[in-house]
Amino acid sequence: MRVFQIQDDWGMANLKLADRPQPQPGAGQVLLRMLASSLNFRDLVVPERGYGSFTGKLPLIPLSDGVGEVVAVGPGVTRVAVGDRVCPTFFQGWIAGEPVLSRMTGSLGGPIDGTMAEFMCLSEQGVVKVPAYLSDVEAATLPCAALTAWSALATHGAVKPGEQVLIQGSGGVALFALAFARIAGARVTVISSSDEKIERLRALGADATINYRTTPEWSKPARALTDGRGFDHIVELGGEKTLPQSLRCIRPGGTLSMIGVLSGSSLATPLGLIITRQVRLQGITVGHRDGFEAMLRALEQHRMPVIVDRVFEFPALKEALAYLKSGSQFGKICIRH
Amino acid sequence: MRVFQIQDDWGMANLKLADRPQPQPGAGQVLLRMLASSLNFRDLVVPERGYGSFTGKLPLIPLSDGVGEVVAVGPGVTRVAVGDRVCPTFFQGWIAGEPVLSRMTGSLGGPIDGTMAEFMCLSEQGVVKVPAYLSDVEAATLPCAALTAWSALATHGAVKPGEQVLIQGSGGVALFALAFARIAGARVTVISSSDEKIERLRALGADATINYRTTPEWSKPARALTDGRGFDHIVELGGEKTLPQSLRCIRPGGTLSMIGVLSGSSLATPLGLIITRQVRLQGITVGHRDGFEAMLRALEQHRMPVIVDRVFEFPALKEALAYLKSGSQFGKICIRH
Amino acid sequence: MRVFQIQDDWGMANLKLADRPQPQPGAGQVLLRMLASSLNFRDLVVPERGYGSFTGKLPLIPLSDGVGEVVAVGPGVTRVAVGDRVCPTFFQGWIAGEPVLSRMTGSLGGPIDGTMAEFMCLSEQGVVKVPAYLSDVEAATLPCAALTAWSALATHGAVKPGEQVLIQGSGGVALFALAFARIAGARVTVISSSDEKIERLRALGADATINYRTTPEWSKPARALTDGRGFDHIVELGGEKTLPQSLRCIRPGGTLSMIGVLSGSSLATPLGLIITRQVRLQGITVGHRDGFEAMLRALEQHRMPVIVDRVFEFPALKEALAYLKSGSQFGKICIRH
Amino acid sequence: MRVFQIQDDWGMANLKLADRPQPQPGAGQVLLRMLASSLNFRDLVVPERGYGSFTGKLPLIPLSDGVGEVVAVGPGVTRVAVGDRVCPTFFQGWIAGEPVLSRMTGSLGGPIDGTMAEFMCLSEQGVVKVPAYLSDVEAATLPCAALTAWSALATHGAVKPGEQVLIQGSGGVALFALAFARIAGARVTVISSSDEKIERLRALGADATINYRTTPEWSKPARALTDGRGFDHIVELGGEKTLPQSLRCIRPGGTLSMIGVLSGSSLATPLGLIITRQVRLQGITVGHRDGFEAMLRALEQHRMPVIVDRVFEFPALKEALAYLKSGSQFGKICIRH
Repeated sequence: MRVFQIQDDWGMANLKLADRPQPQPGAGQVLLRMLASSLNFRDLVVPERGYGSFTGKLPLIPLSDGVGEVVAVGPGVTRVAVGDRVCPTFFQGWIAGEPVLSRMTGSLGGPIDGTMAEFMCLSEQGVVKVPAYLSDVEAATLPCAALTAWSALATHGAVKPGEQVLIQGSGGVALFALAFARIAGARVTVISSSDEKIERLRALGADATINYRTTPEWSKPARALTDGRGFDHIVELGGEKTLPQSLRCIRPGGTLSMIGVLSGSSLATPLGLIITRQVRLQGITVGHRDGFEAMLRALEQHRMPVIVDRVFEFPALKEALAYLKSGSQFGKICIRH
Repeated sequence: MRVFQIQDDWGMANLKLADRPQPQPGAGQVLLRMLASSLNFRDLVVPERGYGSFTGKLPLIPLSDGVGEVVAVGPGVTRVAVGDRVCPTFFQGWIAGEPVLSRMTGSLGGPIDGTMAEFMCLSEQGVVKVPAYLSDVEAATLPCAALTAWSALATHGAVKPGEQVLIQGSGGVALFALAFARIAGARVTVISSSDEKIERLRALGADATINYRTTPEWSKPARALTDGRGFDHIVELGGEKTLPQSLRCIRPGGTLSMIGVLSGSSLATPLGLIITRQVRLQGITVGHRDGFEAMLRALEQHRMPVIVDRVFEFPALKEALAYLKSGSQFGKICIRH
Repeated sequence: MRVFQIQDDWGMANLKLADRPQPQPGAGQVLLRMLASSLNFRDLVVPERGYGSFTGKLPLIPLSDGVGEVVAVGPGVTRVAVGDRVCPTFFQGWIAGEPVLSRMTGSLGGPIDGTMAEFMCLSEQGVVKVPAYLSDVEAATLPCAALTAWSALATHGAVKPGEQVLIQGSGGVALFALAFARIAGARVTVISSSDEKIERLRALGADATINYRTTPEWSKPARALTDGRGFDHIVELGGEKTLPQSLRCIRPGGTLSMIGVLSGSSLATPLGLIITRQVRLQGITVGHRDGFEAMLRALEQHRMPVIVDRVFEFPALKEALAYLKSGSQFGKICIRH
Repeated sequence: MRVFQIQDDWGMANLKLADRPQPQPGAGQVLLRMLASSLNFRDLVVPERGYGSFTGKLPLIPLSDGVGEVVAVGPGVTRVAVGDRVCPTFFQGWIAGEPVLSRMTGSLGGPIDGTMAEFMCLSEQGVVKVPAYLSDVEAATLPCAALTAWSALATHGAVKPGEQVLIQGSGGVALFALAFARIAGARVTVISSSDEKIERLRALGADATINYRTTPEWSKPARALTDGRGFDHIVELGGEKTLPQSLRCIRPGGTLSMIGVLSGSSLATPLGLIITRQVRLQGITVGHRDGFEAMLRALEQHRMPVIVDRVFEFPALKEALAYLKSGSQFGKICIRH
């Protein structure tokens, strides 16, 4: 079967189209014919052996997000049946409960082979059925980007109607967070780098917006939007440049979901503010299968749209990654298999 | 000032229009000129010395719910100012935290004088400012009926998008619960006694409805509405007639908010189901001031409508109570002062 | 291999010693040579087809609790190794998370074959390693009795130092609850039916005790033990006779873990008290594997003793069950294989 | 009455003994004759106008912690009576609930006058009765140091038996944290700067200890103490020097209570670890009155000892502060009035 893989050595240059034998499902396993994949920031880092503690071995099939059709099942499979359309879960071993180490080891797209293959063979415990209203490329965006936003706002955050949520940017996680915060009844402020993106964020339902390029000290006007109370919840995607501002506009006792460190991982002054404001800083990495299935029920009930920026064909993976690197997208970048 | 009070002895017959001297606010107190009141089922029980453990003394001014305008403040008051429109809180001493006994003693309309007076003098800690978009009679419905629904679904229940909520009836609490569950993103099923009410519940956004008169074993079709999973949350208002049905259609691990026992308080078989289904049965009595203020932010953000069935003038209190007793209302019954 | 099984028809009379072929572990499975079992009240009910909704088929090997040694593992097993001493989990499919229906179906001792067999073949996901300090019969008591107490007080209850806990009786769950409440720093009151048992409960660390035979209205003296505040947590094992008393001595906002209905399952008056006291009534049925493993860490750290009343040999199962039925035991009744 | 106050200008040099008129309790207020005070690190910072955002005005009576006897009560006081021995709460306005801004403004020892006075006049809502088994100087240590540790481990942390807790140092908060973690049944590791202190920590019940001077990379041996799982809970008192180590030995999903930044507030690399380990970093500043009272019940039940290093007389405040600055104490430094 046709796959993309990082082979011979780490480095984006070693990401190659290759051929592998088609896997067969053993007891408790399912075979998926992959329909679509989607890109995350992580997919730029893994090929460079990023997140150094990696135990992954080469060759490695990249990409964490995708959707496939069940085309065969091994003995004893009961969760899904041939013909079901399913997403693999990012952490194959995390069904529910605390993220103890043993549940964090098997993540798709490194160290375990990812979705850029014609077929995937996985435990039936590692897949979830997806709603029919979503197209293949839309469904392919759910395992990491959508679930990360859901874990932040629903699983950990329990955002309530009337609460104030601040979201940073217009990447995949940010747009899902905007959507989830809105259906949970919160008031949502989004900061973004351009007025053009801000216009689109408004159209998607952002109640308030701030251009952080033109207003680098955005925490002041942001706080004003909350009548001085501060935000109940901030979805922190920026890192060292945004965190000091976030800590200045969060309410005492508020929750800050730490998801990304796009602007760097050094953090100078604000440690003291975490204490005096009694903030909860919650690190988020995707989430468990129970959360995924809860999210799917929410998506289906509200028939929530998924924002796809651009779809590439399977062989154009490198072009897709380059486009992701450019940072100019609004929403998810997907691959049609 | 003009008041209604239960005087000489308990019993609805002793509910009389009377005159009392106008109170004056001391240190930390506020004086309210009352604008409107609203009725709860409790207001039929208290005059008969219901809820037997009552420590209340006569004469007693009835009614727990109302709204007034601050017309004077005592020394040291900072939470509100003259001109503010505020609701008294039902439990005058419960600001936040656990409902320990000392916080439960001072409830309006018994044992403490209630809202059927021209003026009320209260601690500034015992009032909350209400949103401008609500009329006086609408605002008067919030302290008990709305807050009870909020405590069940938001404070205790933390209802999330995609969850399934079942609500019983079309009384004041039920209609607020329907509204809150919807803005929290849940899917809402309501059971009701008549097709006419069901039509109105549909118009208010109920996703599904069941007529429990024509379908006394409503737990089966109800469960079917959840694809067999069962309801995540049931707002239990009925008591002995509804609880056995509720326990048959709640999901294992689900939450059942116990609010009312309109149909009686004896409970036969279902104790075992509570255990095997691992259900959480949460008793709810109104709620604390922090919950009230959180609810007000949700109301204001969504400009949520309040369903008022009928408005009576101040002297017509007894007619209003008789109408409440008839059970034919849909929404709240209010009194204009 | 030698087994006990209910065969031909339901009823204790049909519980027979029998022979079955020894199972072999498939992929992901482990084979246990059973070392000991222990009895629960459930084991008296299941043979009579109790808990009517049973989907179990005959023949059925009874008993839910036991411990065995891993003597063989199938392909792909990583959680345990040959030589490990492990307990099967009661719910074979409940690792963590909510008790959704699909996780509740596979419980040992009905509908799935239980521990009264020379060998058991289970998924590696369905066993946990037990601490070395416990003897076999002691370890055999953990899966249901100990975990039920842990789920009530730790998983759901989060009992804290300085809180007041009331426990009913001196059965298996009660004694584990006493031990867990004490290491969590709570003050523990136990009610019991005899002064002799009370003496032993005192020796095990009960801070206060009440004889409910001689003091049937035990809620009054119990409440007095809490300076009138009421109990933060009550472990409810009795049912219709104890629940009304429990609701009279629990603090407003307290938690009542519903575990057993030994004295019957009808519940008359107290529904109203659940509401006005804002009590949380939490149904408990054993618990998940994550809870089991957390409990084992607590047991091991504190080298907590397990109270075993009497040990029977494997062929004496019926005598053991008759002894259980007599109700005269103090602690667990075990079977040595 | 005799007081210490910072007068004329900020700076430790302006901390002077002075005279003020004795206050009188108004409605709802109590007058305390102060019996003892105790020192916190904060008391070194406030005189230098530390925590820059201070709204405090001069003259200011310093110190946050103390205990006094009620010698007079104003009209309407019911919570306490003349003769009661009480501690003032640090946040005079925080009874329960979320730490919203309005509850954080009135903290003793700046911006509000503190405990270094012969008499204090406070709202009855701002004091709590203390157990009789504690001496005056022992009771004086509770409002900040003890409550901070309690809030971290009990209110926010809900530490359970069998969990692993790591605590840094042997200051006031650290020693209370050690004691609270132990009565909650946890296994406690403490890191300290000297073998002499380590010996004393062992005597107080620390299950394991590490000298961070001789083992600067203490996270490795620390993690080994948990069988590689990592700590469930870390009480972080150090700041920039300890946090990177803490993040390397906390378990995925663990909780890190941020309390102090003694070693500096800059934080370089570990932001990424917060995310990938899904850590919860919870900022803690003292706590609310409900937590204080829950803690007092735990203290009283267990008759927990308070570790007092040295007691100074009232006029020797400056010597006491200098001793605190030296960092050589083990336990609390107190002032006898």
